[in-house]
Amino acid sequence: MRNVELKENERVDEIASSGVKIIQSREVFSFSIDAILLARFPRLPSRGQIVDMCAGNGAVGLFASSRTKANIIEVEIQERLADMAQRSIELNDLTSRMSVITDNLNNTTKYLNTSSTDLIFCNPPYFKIDSEDSHINESHHYTLARHELTTNLDEIFDTAKKLLKSNGHIAMVHRPERFLEIVDKMRANNLQPKWIQFVYPKANQPANILLIDAIKDGRAGGEIFLPPLVIHNEDGSYTKEIDEIYYGKH
Amino acid sequence: MRNVELKENERVDEIASSGVKIIQSREVFSFSIDAILLARFPRLPSRGQIVDMCAGNGAVGLFASSRTKANIIEVEIQERLADMAQRSIELNDLTSRMSVITDNLNNTTKYLNTSSTDLIFCNPPYFKIDSEDSHINESHHYTLARHELTTNLDEIFDTAKKLLKSNGHIAMVHRPERFLEIVDKMRANNLQPKWIQFVYPKANQPANILLIDAIKDGRAGGEIFLPPLVIHNEDGSYTKEIDEIYYGKH
Repeated sequence: MRNVELKENERVDEIASSGVKIIQSREVFSFSIDAILLARFPRLPSRGQIVDMCAGNGAVGLFASSRTKANIIEVEIQERLADMAQRSIELNDLTSRMSVITDNLNNTTKYLNTSSTDLIFCNPPYFKIDSEDSHINESHHYTLARHELTTNLDEIFDTAKKLLKSNGHIAMVHRPERFLEIVDKMRANNLQPKWIQFVYPKANQPANILLIDAIKDGRAGGEIFLPPLVIHNEDGSYTKEIDEIYYGKH
Repeated sequence: MRNVELKENERVDEIASSGVKIIQSREVFSFSIDAILLARFPRLPSRGQIVDMCAGNGAVGLFASSRTKANIIEVEIQERLADMAQRSIELNDLTSRMSVITDNLNNTTKYLNTSSTDLIFCNPPYFKIDSEDSHINESHHYTLARHELTTNLDEIFDTAKKLLKSNGHIAMVHRPERFLEIVDKMRANNLQPKWIQFVYPKANQPANILLIDAIKDGRAGGEIFLPPLVIHNEDGSYTKEIDEIYYGKH
């Protein structure tokens, strides 16, 4: 492990099943279970290029790095988070195949070739700017990570369409209540939703997380709804599936 | 219970939790778990008018009859099945508020007023005519029940749009692999998908049944994915949820 400087109020977290260390800070925006679920959701290309959009502190790409030899590029507009992602890459000795672009998503094609990418991850801001779920008192870092201020679904899918090879994939985590909007905007950009998984806080509660994998230029029809993923048992403990995702198979 | 004539090879089945008796015959098309799940899926209007489209032997409307005082109209094009539905209505002493229209779905507006209906049930044929799942050797009755020969999604939703009151509901059971086609065609007819439930044969298998409830003139967004419904435990026995749907709460 490299010797990497931690800044004030930063800590290093590790998800046991990935073996990857991630620099975090409560002052900005820590990764959540959403990032962990997204990283294990799609089938990963063994080589080639993966882009992690709206990367934050780089959690999704970092988690995925242990299961592929592909190059992984993190794209994050917030300098503070992009800097944490860069230092996490160094911390895990992954500089030979991971890097960070600190810029607006729209500008990604200035750095990367079109039709160059095998897989895109995206854990975007979930809330519309006028959303009732808006938290106006939270810090600027949280506001940007949670609300569609610097990007939105149209821009994400337009950029994805340009970056992906034909038959390349985009895997996204989002909120189920925006499912129809997401599949409409994906298809408007030649991204055909194919594998969908809903995540439920408990077995008797409605889904609160959506995982969706779409194929560029994929054929319509035949979408597959994968087995339900339930987070908690009735007593509040993690289910066996979530335990395995966090800690690996026992 | 009325004295109703059973024809050759017919039997009477009962779903304990509904208390309703249904005339069945293997020669034509018996109701499946899909009909039982559909009948308990939407919230029922306490009064008013319910239409059961593609009614077959009337199973969905008959099951639902025990939980509402609404009038229920079964629409079925196959005379043999429509006749069984009519005799089941007599058998359960429901002639005062249940009836059968034996005609093509397209013609329903000849019998019923537009904007007259609170809830539509629909357990339609699942397969396109050119589907690979086509079973060309099965009987004519099965072929009509399984394939979109006499009706299709466009006709169903066009008729639903005409029959439903504003804010009336259509509850449909179908196959998950046609989900996107269904939500597109619903919305093209001002039917906004709102509650969706996926049914899984086992907890670790992809969904094989889709339940979807749409609101005429409903507002877009905010769709809700209800808790997963799993049919079988790992050992093949019914789960507690399915046991309760069949036999009622213990």
